[in-house]
Amino acid sequence: MTASTASPSQCLHVELDARRYPIHVGPGLLDDPAMLVPYLAGRQVMIVTNETVAPRYLERLKRALSGDDRDVREIVLPDGEHTKTLASVERIWDALLAAGFNRRCTLVALGGGVIGDMAGFAAACYQRGVAFVQVPTTLLSQVDSSVGGKTGVNHPRGKNMIGAFWQPRAVVIDTQTLTTLPSRELSAGLAEVIKYGLIHDIEFLAWLESRMTALRALDAEALTEAILRSCAIKAEIVAADETEQGQRALLNLGHTFGHAIEAHQGYGNWLHGEAVGAGMAMAAELSRRLGWLDDAEVARVEALIVHAGLPVTAPAAMSGDDFLATMRLDKKNIDARLRLVLLSRLGEACIHDATPPDMLDALLADFPRH
Amino acid sequence: MTASTASPSQCLHVELDARRYPIHVGPGLLDDPAMLVPYLAGRQVMIVTNETVAPRYLERLKRALSGDDRDVREIVLPDGEHTKTLASVERIWDALLAAGFNRRCTLVALGGGVIGDMAGFAAACYQRGVAFVQVPTTLLSQVDSSVGGKTGVNHPRGKNMIGAFWQPRAVVIDTQTLTTLPSRELSAGLAEVIKYGLIHDIEFLAWLESRMTALRALDAEALTEAILRSCAIKAEIVAADETEQGQRALLNLGHTFGHAIEAHQGYGNWLHGEAVGAGMAMAAELSRRLGWLDDAEVARVEALIVHAGLPVTAPAAMSGDDFLATMRLDKKNIDARLRLVLLSRLGEACIHDATPPDMLDALLADFPRH
Repeated sequence: MTASTASPSQCLHVELDARRYPIHVGPGLLDDPAMLVPYLAGRQVMIVTNETVAPRYLERLKRALSGDDRDVREIVLPDGEHTKTLASVERIWDALLAAGFNRRCTLVALGGGVIGDMAGFAAACYQRGVAFVQVPTTLLSQVDSSVGGKTGVNHPRGKNMIGAFWQPRAVVIDTQTLTTLPSRELSAGLAEVIKYGLIHDIEFLAWLESRMTALRALDAEALTEAILRSCAIKAEIVAADETEQGQRALLNLGHTFGHAIEAHQGYGNWLHGEAVGAGMAMAAELSRRLGWLDDAEVARVEALIVHAGLPVTAPAAMSGDDFLATMRLDKKNIDARLRLVLLSRLGEACIHDATPPDMLDALLADFPRH
Repeated sequence: MTASTASPSQCLHVELDARRYPIHVGPGLLDDPAMLVPYLAGRQVMIVTNETVAPRYLERLKRALSGDDRDVREIVLPDGEHTKTLASVERIWDALLAAGFNRRCTLVALGGGVIGDMAGFAAACYQRGVAFVQVPTTLLSQVDSSVGGKTGVNHPRGKNMIGAFWQPRAVVIDTQTLTTLPSRELSAGLAEVIKYGLIHDIEFLAWLESRMTALRALDAEALTEAILRSCAIKAEIVAADETEQGQRALLNLGHTFGHAIEAHQGYGNWLHGEAVGAGMAMAAELSRRLGWLDDAEVARVEALIVHAGLPVTAPAAMSGDDFLATMRLDKKNIDARLRLVLLSRLGEACIHDATPPDMLDALLADFPRH
């Protein structure tokens, strides 16, 4: 018996690039062939995973995918952002060719965002494109990488510089995989969940306030709903802006300040979601100084970020100039004008390139440190 | 003054994958900014070429692309099929990143099929896809790679195993570049031109018979027409079959026999087009034995292939079993049944998987050798 019969899973259909695929969310889906097998292109299946995830979930996923004369193999890569290189993707291609896999094979990504990005890119370019199924096992990848089709690897000169847009045939999210996720990483994923509420849906924001304790206690129903609503908001924003000119930039709330923190502290010392948490607090405070939020609303935003287990203060060692040095390089900027994603009100974001320099300098100087 | 004012160029519009792009054909187009500049995405331009082509055409192309504050750079790779590797494509990505090129850059491929395949793949995956313009300088790449969007590189375990579909913004074919092409390579390109007539257009076949002398003498008007008609036929076949299941296989006339010759003789000893020439003669003869062509029609096919400067006999050292060893691996085969592209009549091809084994064995045994 699979857990999904005990606690029914839910499903969202994403429609992008003239393709349509389902995101299945619920507890125990990793064991459920019905959630996986319909999306395989043929009998050849290659699971791409890493050394952290494999001992926990690989055998269960393999069992669910096996049967009917299927040839299910795996490639287990090292863990970590530093492995997100073309050399790792070449290892996937080598494994596919050594196995004699043809154009009707399917790649299944089992792991977090790094595994999903690499397996998706490998699928996009193997024999000019093969089927791809995502089984994301971190909250961040479940709410971020499930929608948008971005795949790729880092280059010594920049993150995600080499890649392709490639949509999965299905995304299968087993909320039980979050039980083995370090709580710091759960909180980091919650930063992106909160972001979706802040930029697009004040009702979802209120729901998060009421359910944050349940989410951090890994309540399956709360997680399922949070993930589905997050994916639905991202799908709506991406669909409205497939060329990535306007709306989609709103997904970067907190990210401009956050990237500055990550870059200054060294990637990996602050988790991405932790930096985004502090960054969203900074964006909320700047929105207040521009007259768009009141004190109570900023306090509400900060309380929710704190409740998720995330920082709302910047690193002690970081000066205003340290922030500006990275922020000036942000891709959103046009003609050297800083463009920031801010909150025009709770549940609605905007792109703003006219923050008075004095106001920004003051915020960066006096925003609380820890 | 550009040559195109003296001898007007012609243009074909290709519509595939919901994209539309022009193929401009004529003498002197390499020098004509009007044929190139409208298709650039922004001011950053990277020409990808090789050591053979660069001394002849790079400076002229650079001059045509320059001006208006454009930043035109080049990367010059070694020449040859053995360079068609992921490592070469990495060199292109390194050059783009070292130059600080962003998502609005344009890659321009100047060279034959190898350069086009690598530059196209580099464009497909640089920052998840940038603009691409093709300036093919061999007859084979002009009539073959201009349509279909196939890009990619070889892997030690197989040709074209890693790649992507990526359409160019424009293809600019300067027929004058064929004046520096070795005549053996011109003939090899003519094999594919003849193929289009044989599989799809008996009028084009008759036109080729009347204009073959002019084509081999590099008559600009004849070349322009042959290239345009070839691209138009390929575009029609590809459009009818974007998923590559049926019609598109007809483009492989002569290729199953031809690949066996190339593989047996070692790639590069027979040019691809030479092997296709002999392979088309074999396909015509087998079609005769099946009762689909008469003696005079086979003689007509052979005469045209000979007139193009191509072989119509197989290598002396190759046995029937040598042919079968490679032919059994052909991707078109289904369930170990040999599938061959044959001529149901002149100007019409079919896929046939019911050739009596004795008949095929006899053909492979008694087909003339040299």
